[in-house]
Amino acid sequence: MGKKKNQTKKAAASVRKLERKLWCRSYLMKIAEFDGATIAPENGAAARTEAMGTLASEYHKLLTKKSSVKKVKDLLDAVESSNIADEQLCAEARVLARDQHEALAIPAEEAEAWTRLTCEAQAVWHKAKVANDWASFEPYIDRIVDSLKHQAELMNPKADPYDVWLDQHERGLSTTSFDAFCAQVKDTVVPLVHEIGERGQQPDAPFAHAHVPVEVQKALSLDLMKLVGLDLADTTLAVTEHPFSEGFATGDARIATHFYEDDALSNVFSIVHEAGHTIYELGVNPAYAFTSLEGGTSMGIHESQSRFFENTVARSRAFMGPLLQVLRKHVPEVYGQVSEDELYRAVNIARPSLIRTEADELTYPLHIMVRYEIERLLFAGEATARDIPALWSRFMDEYLGVDVPDDAHGCLQDVHWSGGSFGYFPTYALGSAYDAQYVPAMKADGVDIDAACAAGDLTPVRAWLGNKIWQWGRAKDAPELIQNACGAPFDAHFYCDYLNEKFRSLYNL
Amino acid sequence: MGKKKNQTKKAAASVRKLERKLWCRSYLMKIAEFDGATIAPENGAAARTEAMGTLASEYHKLLTKKSSVKKVKDLLDAVESSNIADEQLCAEARVLARDQHEALAIPAEEAEAWTRLTCEAQAVWHKAKVANDWASFEPYIDRIVDSLKHQAELMNPKADPYDVWLDQHERGLSTTSFDAFCAQVKDTVVPLVHEIGERGQQPDAPFAHAHVPVEVQKALSLDLMKLVGLDLADTTLAVTEHPFSEGFATGDARIATHFYEDDALSNVFSIVHEAGHTIYELGVNPAYAFTSLEGGTSMGIHESQSRFFENTVARSRAFMGPLLQVLRKHVPEVYGQVSEDELYRAVNIARPSLIRTEADELTYPLHIMVRYEIERLLFAGEATARDIPALWSRFMDEYLGVDVPDDAHGCLQDVHWSGGSFGYFPTYALGSAYDAQYVPAMKADGVDIDAACAAGDLTPVRAWLGNKIWQWGRAKDAPELIQNACGAPFDAHFYCDYLNEKFRSLYNL
Repeated sequence: MGKKKNQTKKAAASVRKLERKLWCRSYLMKIAEFDGATIAPENGAAARTEAMGTLASEYHKLLTKKSSVKKVKDLLDAVESSNIADEQLCAEARVLARDQHEALAIPAEEAEAWTRLTCEAQAVWHKAKVANDWASFEPYIDRIVDSLKHQAELMNPKADPYDVWLDQHERGLSTTSFDAFCAQVKDTVVPLVHEIGERGQQPDAPFAHAHVPVEVQKALSLDLMKLVGLDLADTTLAVTEHPFSEGFATGDARIATHFYEDDALSNVFSIVHEAGHTIYELGVNPAYAFTSLEGGTSMGIHESQSRFFENTVARSRAFMGPLLQVLRKHVPEVYGQVSEDELYRAVNIARPSLIRTEADELTYPLHIMVRYEIERLLFAGEATARDIPALWSRFMDEYLGVDVPDDAHGCLQDVHWSGGSFGYFPTYALGSAYDAQYVPAMKADGVDIDAACAAGDLTPVRAWLGNKIWQWGRAKDAPELIQNACGAPFDAHFYCDYLNEKFRSLYNL
Repeated sequence: MGKKKNQTKKAAASVRKLERKLWCRSYLMKIAEFDGATIAPENGAAARTEAMGTLASEYHKLLTKKSSVKKVKDLLDAVESSNIADEQLCAEARVLARDQHEALAIPAEEAEAWTRLTCEAQAVWHKAKVANDWASFEPYIDRIVDSLKHQAELMNPKADPYDVWLDQHERGLSTTSFDAFCAQVKDTVVPLVHEIGERGQQPDAPFAHAHVPVEVQKALSLDLMKLVGLDLADTTLAVTEHPFSEGFATGDARIATHFYEDDALSNVFSIVHEAGHTIYELGVNPAYAFTSLEGGTSMGIHESQSRFFENTVARSRAFMGPLLQVLRKHVPEVYGQVSEDELYRAVNIARPSLIRTEADELTYPLHIMVRYEIERLLFAGEATARDIPALWSRFMDEYLGVDVPDDAHGCLQDVHWSGGSFGYFPTYALGSAYDAQYVPAMKADGVDIDAACAAGDLTPVRAWLGNKIWQWGRAKDAPELIQNACGAPFDAHFYCDYLNEKFRSLYNL
């Protein structure tokens, strides 16, 4: 036993040294990427691409070189053959071995070329979006899809390439399961949207588009971040084209937002959304620092956290009191006379629209389906990048009944494809659906969500999420987390019931 | 010949691959450092220290490992024995060989520990300055000085350790030469400051302390940056505790400033100062990208560029027209009624003060001498960190006749020591002295500096500096650049004459 324990200790020390080196590269890539998306000057893009390409190649080589494979195998063997109950170490070995297995399928040169391609594509997308110039960005999409298909074939030659990427972003997800989810959600949402359009009365909310200067919105954002539970010593608020957040390390996870002076509520919900991601990253067990377990486990679980804060909390009737208080503090001339009920109606207007990130909770999944349809056609070879603008118009009409005026408000709106994230959008729809299943589980565990929202003190909500989800980092996959949190596997009917109930009540249907 | 050319080509390709890897680490260190000084959250410091320590250790190992030493030696041999006249390649080999030679003196573990120490010390200094808490920062100074002395002994066991660091920051500089410089400058400045105090009439300039909101100062700063010749696609403006700038790559050099709402002119001159550094970095020959020749050659030359823009240009009588135009555009209510003469007097008030970065052109070198005296005592073992606050008070009284109210306005004011920069302050005084020697050389070459300043179009000034200084990057050392630019070695009497003439005229002495 003593000998085995010693072997495990030695193997662990060796693997943790490797994990620290990998962490360092991943941290620096994120720092450089965040820099690129926020404050870096335009002409620094080539240098950043060079550095990121080098980092990606080094990361890949470090993870896949023979000695690293041996180290991880030794640790796996050691923890499996010994009886020591170090759960963290077992999880580290397992997660790292899987990362390694997947990376081994991709040659180092391809990994580096991939990073360079997406780094360049993001800079091109940024300019293309501002200039409404799809043509300049189009060739990157074909190259990205080709590369993703090739990588998927290397990782799993037997599977459909698109399924491989769905599974990468959310373990267990496939076109079969997502098709079933879409069918169920569509059956609920499409008639609801139709009924609202026919019979629902839209509220009049002129305050939602009052002019609020950027500086006021910044101060308001910091108060909101504190209100939902962020410690400002752990985070920062930067400005970018497309709101996002990123976890860098224990004690460092950040938000980047976009301010529209004639739409302050857009930023309010972006901030709360990104705060959800950020709180999740900051809530991971600090003992996981510098290991393979740091960070969120999957895109769907991540999105379930951001949307929990954005929708379940910040768009609930109960939260209107605390939210209105912050709005009144910073924009008294606009929100002084607005009532909680008026605000509740205004932040829950359900109406087909062009921009996914601005979409309401009800029509949101339809935006995802538009992207999913296009991604499947691209991966099936039934469409190329050139077809995307026309497909976009067709599906937006089909799902949402809206006309797309130009590519900037259409297929150029999202950053994701430029970064190589295909098979990723579906996780956004899943996130909200997970939330609807968390709620009854949380209530069964004694958490009074409405009371916490009304009090503007989300401590009990954060405690439940922290305990069930955040602390585990990458140590557990999505299906296991959901099973543990909810006592059952994922089931979309909670989501459909929630949407039906909330929006039928809002629109008196 | 053909064979030798081929050998050179092969050796060059091999060295450039190494240079690119080194560049990548140096770029990432700067990105992480800039991030830390501008937008990173407080609690991210430990992770940044971890990443920077790893980068420093890897940089050092890469540069000094046997195969790298051989590569550089092979290239040096090849360029020396062949007749190919590739000046850039020769300079690359020479500069890299020197870097390598110096790095070889320091063990990799010491290089890494050094980076971790200064990274940590900077975070501690930041908090200490805000809290006026010298005690928390004090132990770092002793550790830093000990490490610097040890490193100097390793690099050059025969030399005085402080001389080694002076030479690192400015090739050829020593306590002997800087003592002589100080004596000469002191002889000019001290009586002048005294005479101004006795007989000079200080102008009344209430506008200098009018309230100007941060947002207005930001917009004003961007206009100033453009006015002196920066392309905003190459740079960015961030906010920090202590203004600085940093060159990252061809096409990416940035400014971080500090806004005081009751002292907009402080930021105006910080911006122009940092713009000078930034334009220098951006003006390096783009063919030097990713090589050992990228960046400025020395601290003194760098400071000569920043101070040329700050003082020779932006504090000249001729520049008051364009400067006033920018001030009036952004702060019309304050600067609408200010005349060029009033502005000229206000931005050239010479008066002993507490803060180096806010000091006027005349008293500035005395602030440097205070730091130089203390650094020499620390390196001579005649003082430790604990003595610094008292020494600071003593020398500030001796040189400037001012009382130091607390450490935040005294020995905690500068970031430099926390970053390990000892022997660095002297280059600040040299920078201004170089400028005074550039001016007659520039004029002799036909550049009408006053006309360029008055027109608000610095093209001819930038052309001369670009040609004589910027383009050479690290390919030439300071003494060679000065000799080439001025046709003579450095001579401090230009500086003394300039100060005498300018301030006697300003104060009618």
